[in-house]
Formats: sequence, structure tokens, C-alpha cells
Amino acid sequence: MTLVDSRHDVRGAAPARAPEIDIATTRPGTPGGTFMRQFWIALDNSANLPPGRARPIRIMSENFTLYRGHSGKAQVVAQRCPHRGAMMHLGWVEDDDIRCVYHGWKFDCSGQCIEQPAELEGFSRKVRLPVYPTREHLGLIFAYFGEGEPPPWPPYPESAGEGIVDPWPMYKVPCNYLQCFENSMDEVHVAFTHAPGGSHARLAKDLPVISAEEKDWGLLRFGTRASGKVRHTLHYAPNIVRVIVPPLAGMDGVGGWPEITFSFTPVDDENCLWVLTSKAFVTGKDKEIFLEKRAEIERKRLEAPPVMQVVEDIWSGKLSYADVRHLDLAVVQDIAVQAGQGRIEDRDDEYLGRSDAAIIMWRRILQRELGLIAAGKPHKRWTTPPADVVPIIGI
Amino acid sequence: MTLVDSRHDVRGAAPARAPEIDIATTRPGTPGGTFMRQFWIALDNSANLPPGRARPIRIMSENFTLYRGHSGKAQVVAQRCPHRGAMMHLGWVEDDDIRCVYHGWKFDCSGQCIEQPAELEGFSRKVRLPVYPTREHLGLIFAYFGEGEPPPWPPYPESAGEGIVDPWPMYKVPCNYLQCFENSMDEVHVAFTHAPGGSHARLAKDLPVISAEEKDWGLLRFGTRASGKVRHTLHYAPNIVRVIVPPLAGMDGVGGWPEITFSFTPVDDENCLWVLTSKAFVTGKDKEIFLEKRAEIERKRLEAPPVMQVVEDIWSGKLSYADVRHLDLAVVQDIAVQAGQGRIEDRDDEYLGRSDAAIIMWRRILQRELGLIAAGKPHKRWTTPPADVVPIIGI
Amino acid sequence: MTLVDSRHDVRGAAPARAPEIDIATTRPGTPGGTFMRQFWIALDNSANLPPGRARPIRIMSENFTLYRGHSGKAQVVAQRCPHRGAMMHLGWVEDDDIRCVYHGWKFDCSGQCIEQPAELEGFSRKVRLPVYPTREHLGLIFAYFGEGEPPPWPPYPESAGEGIVDPWPMYKVPCNYLQCFENSMDEVHVAFTHAPGGSHARLAKDLPVISAEEKDWGLLRFGTRASGKVRHTLHYAPNIVRVIVPPLAGMDGVGGWPEITFSFTPVDDENCLWVLTSKAFVTGKDKEIFLEKRAEIERKRLEAPPVMQVVEDIWSGKLSYADVRHLDLAVVQDIAVQAGQGRIEDRDDEYLGRSDAAIIMWRRILQRELGLIAAGKPHKRWTTPPADVVPIIGI
Repeated sequence: MTLVDSRHDVRGAAPARAPEIDIATTRPGTPGGTFMRQFWIALDNSANLPPGRARPIRIMSENFTLYRGHSGKAQVVAQRCPHRGAMMHLGWVEDDDIRCVYHGWKFDCSGQCIEQPAELEGFSRKVRLPVYPTREHLGLIFAYFGEGEPPPWPPYPESAGEGIVDPWPMYKVPCNYLQCFENSMDEVHVAFTHAPGGSHARLAKDLPVISAEEKDWGLLRFGTRASGKVRHTLHYAPNIVRVIVPPLAGMDGVGGWPEITFSFTPVDDENCLWVLTSKAFVTGKDKEIFLEKRAEIERKRLEAPPVMQVVEDIWSGKLSYADVRHLDLAVVQDIAVQAGQGRIEDRDDEYLGRSDAAIIMWRRILQRELGLIAAGKPHKRWTTPPADVVPIIGI
Repeated sequence: MTLVDSRHDVRGAAPARAPEIDIATTRPGTPGGTFMRQFWIALDNSANLPPGRARPIRIMSENFTLYRGHSGKAQVVAQRCPHRGAMMHLGWVEDDDIRCVYHGWKFDCSGQCIEQPAELEGFSRKVRLPVYPTREHLGLIFAYFGEGEPPPWPPYPESAGEGIVDPWPMYKVPCNYLQCFENSMDEVHVAFTHAPGGSHARLAKDLPVISAEEKDWGLLRFGTRASGKVRHTLHYAPNIVRVIVPPLAGMDGVGGWPEITFSFTPVDDENCLWVLTSKAFVTGKDKEIFLEKRAEIERKRLEAPPVMQVVEDIWSGKLSYADVRHLDLAVVQDIAVQAGQGRIEDRDDEYLGRSDAAIIMWRRILQRELGLIAAGKPHKRWTTPPADVVPIIGI
Repeated sequence: MTLVDSRHDVRGAAPARAPEIDIATTRPGTPGGTFMRQFWIALDNSANLPPGRARPIRIMSENFTLYRGHSGKAQVVAQRCPHRGAMMHLGWVEDDDIRCVYHGWKFDCSGQCIEQPAELEGFSRKVRLPVYPTREHLGLIFAYFGEGEPPPWPPYPESAGEGIVDPWPMYKVPCNYLQCFENSMDEVHVAFTHAPGGSHARLAKDLPVISAEEKDWGLLRFGTRASGKVRHTLHYAPNIVRVIVPPLAGMDGVGGWPEITFSFTPVDDENCLWVLTSKAFVTGKDKEIFLEKRAEIERKRLEAPPVMQVVEDIWSGKLSYADVRHLDLAVVQDIAVQAGQGRIEDRDDEYLGRSDAAIIMWRRILQRELGLIAAGKPHKRWTTPPADVVPIIGI
């Protein structure tokens, strides 16, 4: 196991090596954009997209259309019709095809234009709508935006054991995805950021010493407590954390500590989506109780003040961070702190310590990989995470 | 009659010839800005401006003040007082003069400063407020923003025949004026864009073949149906369409198919105004019925959700285009599709067909005229449209 | 007394001399920013900051945290924790220290890091949070953002005579501070800008002739009426006016004409704060009546439409300036006119007259001082205003 050295003062250490590489951007054509486009990217909850509906999406600074055919197939295609640029999601889903609202051009789900009502025969053969491989896993929709064939499917294994696959609501967060992914590597913040309201009290009792190890599939992170217990958290490249977390507030402990898989998906360089699914290890009659309590939480969520409104009020000083209470308090707290670092955190002006060991390691990996990509050199072949490396509560 | 050649694939044809000319901009000092400033520009409904009132307006990326003197005269003047830059519309209209709110400087409607309460005699003679020729026609206010004398008045003839001149409400649309003007040349879109709700059902029965002819005053466009009937639509340079359209929803057919004259007035390069007036061919007792139904529509309009709110909800995917119903459904649809092409449509990335014949022709005219203007060469002298070339329903 | 010459036409006179100096900016590193950072800057009302609270502030294009320790001490510190950039105002005030919300780093009010719960001993010694001298005077909080020692305290004397120190509500105004400061030198505007509603009727009876004199501490300005009476107003460098003004609307004359000291504090180049305190010369039983009426006004203020909403409606033409009535009518009027000059007024396009004598003088002083600063030459040593130069009503 390669432990990151503890160091008292590593300010600027990582950026100092290759300051010219922007590790936060995922715009197309940048090293970061190319790096991210090697992977399947989670972009929505399956339940948000009924058959026959189309929606606009924005992923890694590019706009697309996501629709679900009447057969149930989800498909990502270009944002605009190749004819005159109308938004494809305004059109009609017909079987598994999509028809443009402007002049009725129709495309099948391979992107081939198959109808142009006002044009002569033969023109349609020449017209294609860009399409992107699209699949679903554990209640989430994924797409592949890179060159060539996508990586093996699925992007990560389902948690073993009986239980309920339970996608959580998505959040749009007004900051770069990387500071959210870094926060997921930052076990110490729990004791402070989530102290108000106390939902994470058990995690905050004593502070872990952090270490990490690079794997073929990402980063395996350890949080060692004074008791000697070690918490294991999995960080799947390029933007996913798999971790065991305390029961949701409002569940009264039903479902125990669920395992969540949490994608930090770039919308653009200044916004990201949190796309989450979880496995609740409930069986038998507990399943019903679990689903009832879950539905109750969803009902209450509709009545709660919007998360971003509360966050804005905390940022402006109108609300006091320590005094805020909310159905999604941990979410409010995380967004207030992480997006509060700035739309894109200034990583040149930090003062990192030993508790930042995993963050430092991941930044070095990004520097290395993006540097190789920028130089046109061979870079790491990431593998699909194996089913037998699993998170461990360890507290 | 010069027909535009049908072509199967003319992607990028027009822009490819002179990519350096921006045909969409109307900013001052650009070829497009100079081109537009040769013409009278419609900027408001007369009824929106009572005597004694002043309002701010923004036309072709420049700000102005529009006021109506107590004699009834409308006048466009500069946005700001030449003294210290206060907004003129905050001041007082006195007779046909306007007085600044900041230090009471007063200007007559020729722009001459005629009072400066706190200054010495003689200074005012040296100070002028820029003014612009301003006149009214068929319920609309027009101004001339170019050099030298404006073109002949009025900018276009009134439709012949007894009836009611009936200005429609204005809309501010968040996109470049040219894509709206181009849409007015695009008869095929009606069958698709306006299919939901069915107000244009009769137009959508069979698709027309489009052709067009350049005239001294603009473009005469033809839509030929399978039946052999030909619809004639007039496009007056630089931004006006005159067309016969189906009866407004809610009119129950009273007034028949009105003739509308529709200006797409640039606010700036990313916004435009739709400034419309119409002639309803009603006579005798029908006039009263028409006006009653018209007033009823206006009352209902106040209760309808704002058009742009519905459009935004369609764009975000919150509302389904096909399912939306609204008092101004055709307006909602047109704005959703046209402004949905982007604030300024990317014309380098299109795939034009034979149905785009009129659009292709107008773009070539713009390329030609703006190219001549850019080169400082003599360019076309556009004439006032004659009264005897009129639109024809032709379906 | 050095009078500014009256001149009929001095358009562009001041800017013409040194157009390269931007007299409006206060960004750090600019001549204007360095000039402003020589002085104590008023930034908030003391009453807005209870013990134990922290708030974000933005002053001269830089972000900071303002907090009040439990001992009552107010302190300005950096916006962000030096560790990983979390916003300090989200954290906890402990005694007179502040603790970061992200990982619990704690800083004393000198900025020294004194706790890092998850780090090894010895690291904290190396970490400092930038702090800024912070003091309070006449109900306002001031800080010093410059190099070295701040100027003598207090920044200006308290008005002599028995009375009540009465801070007014703050306003955030969407324009550069300098056009507000210039407006405070512009006695003539009162007769026009504040004519609607009539609260300044007595000032508008006859127009003063303006002159001014540079002092060690700023500008002493005179407004001479036809009667021979002379109004004295004090402009303390760099952004404060001290003046006697008519009784507030709603006070029914109780407190007579108060003396106000009014700071125009840059938030950034396009926004400023109005930070005001006043002295009402009430004694004995009148104090109670004064405070009661003051409280009544504050209650009514909560019910009045927000000032900026009214201003926006005036700007858009939805409301008529002349017809607007509001509890804070003079504030609405001043913001509508001053911020209506543009976020940063275009001073190259003016037509100044004799009534602008004080503004011209202050611009020349700024040109001179900022020019010396830009050239790295010795510049004026401004002194604290003496207590014996006081404003005079003079009407």
C-alpha cells in the first residue's frame, strides 16, 4: 500500500509541478476533457425520463438531447437538428425515433435521417444526427461521449447482497465537479461541516488519519481511527465515490447504513450534477417499511425550501450556517461549503496538510494523466472496478 | 420569375462565399448596421405612448429616449443628457420639449438646448441633444437612425380595402432579428411548428414548394401547393413581412384572414422586437363585433401566463412542446423554435434544402449588399414597396 | 479662497489632461485603488453585527469576512480559509477567534492560526489569516485596507453639541462610488431631481452659485444664494460628505435639520454602499419623541416596496419618475438619477458648466493625486478633518 507521506506544509506542491495543466476543466478538446471522455458518465435518474419524452441536457460544456423511445430505450443525441439548428427536444418521439419540430425531419436512434417531408428523395441519406452510446444501470442513465468504442459495461458493479436499489434525487451544484470529488476524499470535513444538526455525529467522534492507494480503477482511501479501525472508501475514476454512509435523516435507521455510489458529473466547468444511487440492505417486510419512509421523505422534500435558496442565504450572511435546519441538511452543508470555495476553486492558493493526503494523490494522478494526454503519449488504461473490492464502514 | 434552384445539399453554401461578413449584426459601424440604417425602423405601438410620457428604447444596440409631446408628436432623442449623462426619460415633457431631471436643462424637439437654469446665458446655444426623424403609420411608431435624409414616407402602403387597422401586441424575443425574418420566409415550418393546437391546420394540409424573386423593394416569395395554388408573401427590406394569415384564435373567424405587416426590429444582436400591425377586412356591424372580440382577447391575455415564461419552461424540458396550450400558442411556438436556435443562430453549421430557397436568396442579397457597403462601393437603392403588389392567400 | 473659474464650455477639460488615469476604479493595484486605501473606509452599521456573528463583505473589488467577537470586538479578516478556501463566515466565532467550517482550523483576531484538529503539531504556527485594522465610530464600522499603519483615529470628528447619534439604513447602489460622491458636490440637482414630492422645496427656491476650495482634508464647498447666504458643505477625502440636510420625511420636523456624514464606499467598480450616520440635535424630552418617530419610520420602511425595485421600474419606463411616491423618495430619486448615469459614468462625453465647479475641482485633484501615485512620486498627505470646520445650512 502506497501511503502518501504526511507533510506539514505542502502548499502549492501539486500545482507547482505542472501549473500549465488545468485539472478542473472538462471542456471538449482540453486534456481534462479528453481524460473524462474515456469513461461512461452518469447523467440522469432513469425515473426522470418516461417513454416518449425528450429533455435537454448539458454535460462537460456541451449540449445534448436525451430522449426515451416508446420501447423504453434511452438515447442521447445532438442538441440541435442538423438542418437549421432547432432544439431536438421540442420535437416528437415516434417509436424509438425523434422528429424535429421545425420541418419534420425524422432521425432513427442510430442518428440516420429517415424522413424530410418537404425535400426531394435522396437528400435524407446524406444527413445524420450525432448520437452517443447510452445505457442504464442501477436506476441511472449513462452515456459515453468519447472517441471509438465505450469501455466495458457496466461502469461499476452492483453492491452484493439483498436489498433495494434506491436512486437518490439529483442536485445541480454551482461549482466545478472536481471540488466535490475532492470533498468526497476528505473524511475529516465531516466532523466540522456536518456538526450542526448532528446527523454525522458518530463519524465525528475522533478524527481519522487519511491515506490512499492508487488502483487500476481509481483510488482506495483509508481513514484510520484512534481505535485502529479503518474505514475504506472507493473512488472510481474519473468522478465517482462509493461509500457507506449513515442512515438518511427521517429513515429512523431503517435500511441501516446504505452504500451509495455518487457521480460528480460536470455540467460545464462551473456547474456539476450530483447523480446518486444507493443500495439499502433491507429484506423481507423491512422493504415495505423502507419504501414507505422513503416516500414520506419525498413528500416532505416537496415542501422544504429549495436547497440552493438556503445556500444562497447562507452565502449572503442572511442565514447563519450553524443555525440552519433542513430536510436535506447535509446536502445544504456540503453545497454551501464546496461551492462556497468558488465556482472553480483557486488551487494555487492553498495550504495543504496531512489530512489532504488523498486529495494530493488524486491531483498528482490527474497532473500525470492529463500531462500524458497533452503530450500525446500513452496513458493509463483504467479498468472496470472489481466486485470484490468493497467499502467498509470501519468506525 | 427567377426561381432559386432546388438543391439537395447546399450546406454552408451561402456563408462559404464571404464568411467574413456578419449578416446578423446590426451594431452601429458594421456593414449590417449601415445596411439597416437606410430604412425606417418600426419601434413601438403608437398606443403605448400617451402624450407627456417618455420611455427608454433600445434599437440596433443603441439606447434612445422616445417621448410624445403634449401636441401629440412622438420624438426619438438620445438616451442621455449631454450635460452629465442622466437618462432623459426620467425628465419632464413640457409642450413638445423635454427637460432633464438632473439639472433642468431643456431641449426642444429639434434637439436644441433652450434652457439651463444654473448656467450663464449663451452656453445653451452650444448644446444639442441628438434627435432622430420620427413618424407614425398604421398604429406604429417609426424612426430613422441613418445618415442624411430618411427614405420616402410612409415605409410601406396601407392595405387597400375597407377594414380596421389593428396593431397587435409587441413581443420582445431573445434572439437575433434575422432568424425571425428568415422564419417568415419559411412556409414549411407551419405544418410542424404549429401542428400542436392546430391553429394553422389548413396551411399544413400539403407542403408548398418554395421559390422567390428579388424585387426593388425586397423579396416576393411563392408557396406552390400540389393543387397548383400559389401563396404570395411580401418581404419588404430590410426586416418586414406582409402576409395573410389565419384568423386569430378567439376571433371565431370574425375578420376573416387578416393581412399583417410584421417588423422584426433588432433591439441588439441578441434580442428583437416583433412590431405588428394588421388590417382586418371587416365592415358595417362586423366592426363592432370584431372590436368586442378583440377586447375580450386582450382581457384574457392579461390572465395568461407570460409567453416567455412558457417558452423558458419548454426550453428547460419542464413543459412538453406538444402539450402546451396558450392564448398566444402560435407566438409561444414561434419563439420557442426560433429563439431556440440560439441567441444568434450558427449559420455555418446548417444543412439547407430546397424548402430553404427564399432564405438562401435573402442571405445572398445580404452578403452582396453588406459586401458592397464594407467595400465602400455603390449598393442597391431600395424603393418603397408599391401598393399594387399584394399578398395572396393562395391555399 | 480659491474659486474655480466659471466657464461656459469645459467639455472634457479635466479628462483631456490625463486620459490614461482611470479616476473611477478602486481595484487593488490601480492608482485609484492605492489612493483609496490610504483612508479608513466605512463598511457597515455597527448595529448590523451582533456579537458572535460573521458576515461576508465586499469592499473595493475584494472579498472579506467581518465578524464580531463575543467581547464585542469587530474584526475584518480574509474571505477564505488559507487551508482550502472555505468561506470563513460559515464558521464559528469562539471568544474573539474564528473557526473554519471545513476542517476546524481556528484563528485568533490577529490572524494567527491556533488550532488544526486533524494536523500535526507545529503546522499551525506557519499559517496566518490576513486581518485588517477595524474600529467603530458614531455607529459605523470602519476598516483600513492599505499598507502599513492606518491614519489617525477617528477618521473625522463627531459633530459638536448635544444630540443623538443616529445611523441611517445602508443602501447598496448599482453604480461606481464616484458618481455618488460627485452628486454630493452638486447642490443644483436638488431643485430638479428632488422636485417631485417636494421634500427639498426650501433648497430649490433659488439656485446657488457653486464654488469650492481644496483643503488638507478634502474640499470645502460653497453654495451662494441670491440672498447672499452661503451654504457650506464638507467633502472629506476620499469619499465622505458632511452636510446639513432637511428633516427626514415622517419626522414632522422633530430633530430639525440633522447633520449627516455620508460615506460612498466602493463595493467594486460598479457598485457602492451608502453608509450614513447623523447627529440629530435633540435634547431633553425631545429625544424620546425623536426616537419614537424614528422607530415608526423603520416600521414603515419594512412595508415599503424595495427601493431598487422602484428604481428598476423607473428605468424601464414602467413607472413615471415624476409620479413616484415612496417612504424613501429622495433615496429612490438619487439612485434612479445617479446609477442611471450608467454603472460607470462615461466622463469623456460630458458638457460641464459653472454649476459643476466642485466636481471639476475634485476630478483635478484625483487626476493629480492618482498621477503622482502612478508615477511613484510623493503625493499629498491628507490630514484628519478638524472639528472646527463645520457645515453651515446657509439658506
